[in-house]
Amino acid sequence: MSNALVFQTDFGLGDGAVSAMYGVANTVDPNLRIFDLTHDIPQYNIWEASYRLRQTINYWPEGTVFVSVVDPGVGSTRRSVIAKTSRNQFIITPDNGTLTHIKKVAGIKAVHVFDEKANKLPSAGESYTFYGRDIYAYTGARLAAGLIDFDVFGEAVPVESIVELPVIPAYRDGERVVGMIDVLDVRFGNLWTNIDHNLFHALDVTHGDRLEVTIRNDTRNVYKNTVVFARSFAAVAIGEPVIYINSLENVGVAINQGSFAKAYTIGTGSNWHIAFQKL
Amino acid sequence: MSNALVFQTDFGLGDGAVSAMYGVANTVDPNLRIFDLTHDIPQYNIWEASYRLRQTINYWPEGTVFVSVVDPGVGSTRRSVIAKTSRNQFIITPDNGTLTHIKKVAGIKAVHVFDEKANKLPSAGESYTFYGRDIYAYTGARLAAGLIDFDVFGEAVPVESIVELPVIPAYRDGERVVGMIDVLDVRFGNLWTNIDHNLFHALDVTHGDRLEVTIRNDTRNVYKNTVVFARSFAAVAIGEPVIYINSLENVGVAINQGSFAKAYTIGTGSNWHIAFQKL
Amino acid sequence: MSNALVFQTDFGLGDGAVSAMYGVANTVDPNLRIFDLTHDIPQYNIWEASYRLRQTINYWPEGTVFVSVVDPGVGSTRRSVIAKTSRNQFIITPDNGTLTHIKKVAGIKAVHVFDEKANKLPSAGESYTFYGRDIYAYTGARLAAGLIDFDVFGEAVPVESIVELPVIPAYRDGERVVGMIDVLDVRFGNLWTNIDHNLFHALDVTHGDRLEVTIRNDTRNVYKNTVVFARSFAAVAIGEPVIYINSLENVGVAINQGSFAKAYTIGTGSNWHIAFQKL
Repeated sequence: MSNALVFQTDFGLGDGAVSAMYGVANTVDPNLRIFDLTHDIPQYNIWEASYRLRQTINYWPEGTVFVSVVDPGVGSTRRSVIAKTSRNQFIITPDNGTLTHIKKVAGIKAVHVFDEKANKLPSAGESYTFYGRDIYAYTGARLAAGLIDFDVFGEAVPVESIVELPVIPAYRDGERVVGMIDVLDVRFGNLWTNIDHNLFHALDVTHGDRLEVTIRNDTRNVYKNTVVFARSFAAVAIGEPVIYINSLENVGVAINQGSFAKAYTIGTGSNWHIAFQKL
Repeated sequence: MSNALVFQTDFGLGDGAVSAMYGVANTVDPNLRIFDLTHDIPQYNIWEASYRLRQTINYWPEGTVFVSVVDPGVGSTRRSVIAKTSRNQFIITPDNGTLTHIKKVAGIKAVHVFDEKANKLPSAGESYTFYGRDIYAYTGARLAAGLIDFDVFGEAVPVESIVELPVIPAYRDGERVVGMIDVLDVRFGNLWTNIDHNLFHALDVTHGDRLEVTIRNDTRNVYKNTVVFARSFAAVAIGEPVIYINSLENVGVAINQGSFAKAYTIGTGSNWHIAFQKL
Repeated sequence: MSNALVFQTDFGLGDGAVSAMYGVANTVDPNLRIFDLTHDIPQYNIWEASYRLRQTINYWPEGTVFVSVVDPGVGSTRRSVIAKTSRNQFIITPDNGTLTHIKKVAGIKAVHVFDEKANKLPSAGESYTFYGRDIYAYTGARLAAGLIDFDVFGEAVPVESIVELPVIPAYRDGERVVGMIDVLDVRFGNLWTNIDHNLFHALDVTHGDRLEVTIRNDTRNVYKNTVVFARSFAAVAIGEPVIYINSLENVGVAINQGSFAKAYTIGTGSNWHIAFQKL
């Protein structure tokens, strides 16, 4: 059986772009099993593309081929790469920072650069704007179908050579842990921080403890209040804020059945600082 | 061949949550055929989750396994159940009212409660907030793949013990039939009532007849006008209201190529009353 | 192996309509490989349904069965047809203009009209409003599964008899090429014109040349400025407009990492005229 082929883009599903990618994969091999990660990455948001790969990859089997196309530099000189992770999964993507979290969290053991011209859908013609269809879906499908052997495909380059976005590590500061807001749990407005549960537990907190939560961005203090740490949302009242360990085992902040992000107009990224202090 | 596995959630497709569920299912058995019902159930709206199951289940084959995760009580003491319908389909869900319409319309012949801890994805770790991935997708995949035998899985409990949301029956009142607005045909703004076509036809109406339609909520009368009953939208002018029998064989109200719900700001639920009177 | 079955509708994915179509197809044959083109065609927009088929069809294999349901005339006397293209792909659709671009661009070699009553899902009942489920998904699934033989199914009618929407051809006028804005690259706000790259190159332009772009609708001039022609977005500054050859090898106009359509409130259709003049 062929390996699963999983697509991620910022194309949305409102026109035919993603379906053309499915079609290319079907043309390569009609037996391919094709899935989606998401196609709703905000346009050009490489950070979020990187994060969503990290959020899901561990739940897919060995051998799975991910094709991620968030590519503001399409047609420029940025490289096209295939990364092989420690768990023998593959990610095909423009080398623009999309591999940032996978490298840090899942681990990458090899990266091959491949030539775009030599690996372009034969029927692609004059267009140089839809590499998602003409290069990435096409190459990903051939890899998943076993028509390409990673070991001899493209040119091995040092893992250290891939483009990485700046990642700010979380740290402990006495009775506080300090980090940033990585991303939102989009539909629910929960904050997902970069603070691992192990670092958090260094504060020696247990369910039911209250902590002071401070959120600030580069221009102002946005939130400062005491919030309970609980096992899950159901442990607090509806409408009450809660600190919890999210599905990636990092610290999250939510309002039970409400949106913390909307309530306090919280954003994400390296200028959104968050700290937890034991009381 | 394994049975189809059909996912429904209120997670949306904007982040990696649903894809992590696909990945878990693929890890259980790469041969599984995975489909979606919808992931756009409004957050925490158990009523609509229940209704969408009822809207689709009859069109899927015997043996299909549905996993429905609209779970405001995740991490609380609400039960996790598998229901087996009269047509030998399966629904895995938190027992929070999601089975309301299936029980009434499709019929449930057995319900088994299963232990969440004993049926959790082995790699799930400390998180107690993503049972959709760690428990429901995992257990649904094992059932669809034949790794779980319903007959000996979990503990049989009385069908009458499942949680049901209040459902108000439609009724005849002389020359009127009276009911509620169950749900909208989301994209088109058509009203779907709880009035079955048989009850409606007790008024002895035929295509072309005009009826008085009255809509009120708990605070005011919202609509009162005469509307024609027609076989389909094309029988009336563009922009004209129409009473019709919808795809579930219940009475619907629409504006041909317009949105009745938007035009008159109509909502859904047990406080949205609708009546049809033959003229 | 059965042929791929690809669905397109204007139903959205917010309720159970599309899932009911998947279920019908699964009931016909659980081995069917089911995919989506898009379900976000704006309601009743036959032009866009026609365009999205043309955008994707060439990337799917021979034998693929497309089911396209944008059907404002459901229940009227408009015909239900299956078209067979020059590349031996099939499109099942109401005959309402949905085949316009396929006929012009991909080529249609045969059209068969089929009887709706005789090809309706046996369990469909009294409803006459959901032909997407009861007729088109059902018939498309039977065709993809090989249960229907196109050659003897329905009644052959002249290809010229199908309904076509008016299409305005692009043309050269001295040092200008003149056309219309067919559609948007939805998520990115790029303009896709009906001007083929061959017609454009008749102006003898090369990458780096600047052209005057004029956009007007029936009531006013909307845009008039000089814009560079480049191979891809990356050749211009972020925020700069660019003329390029899009993924269908037609002329497009974009703002690099911005939305041209939003910036100048540009629409689509036969009253949106665009011209390019070499400077």
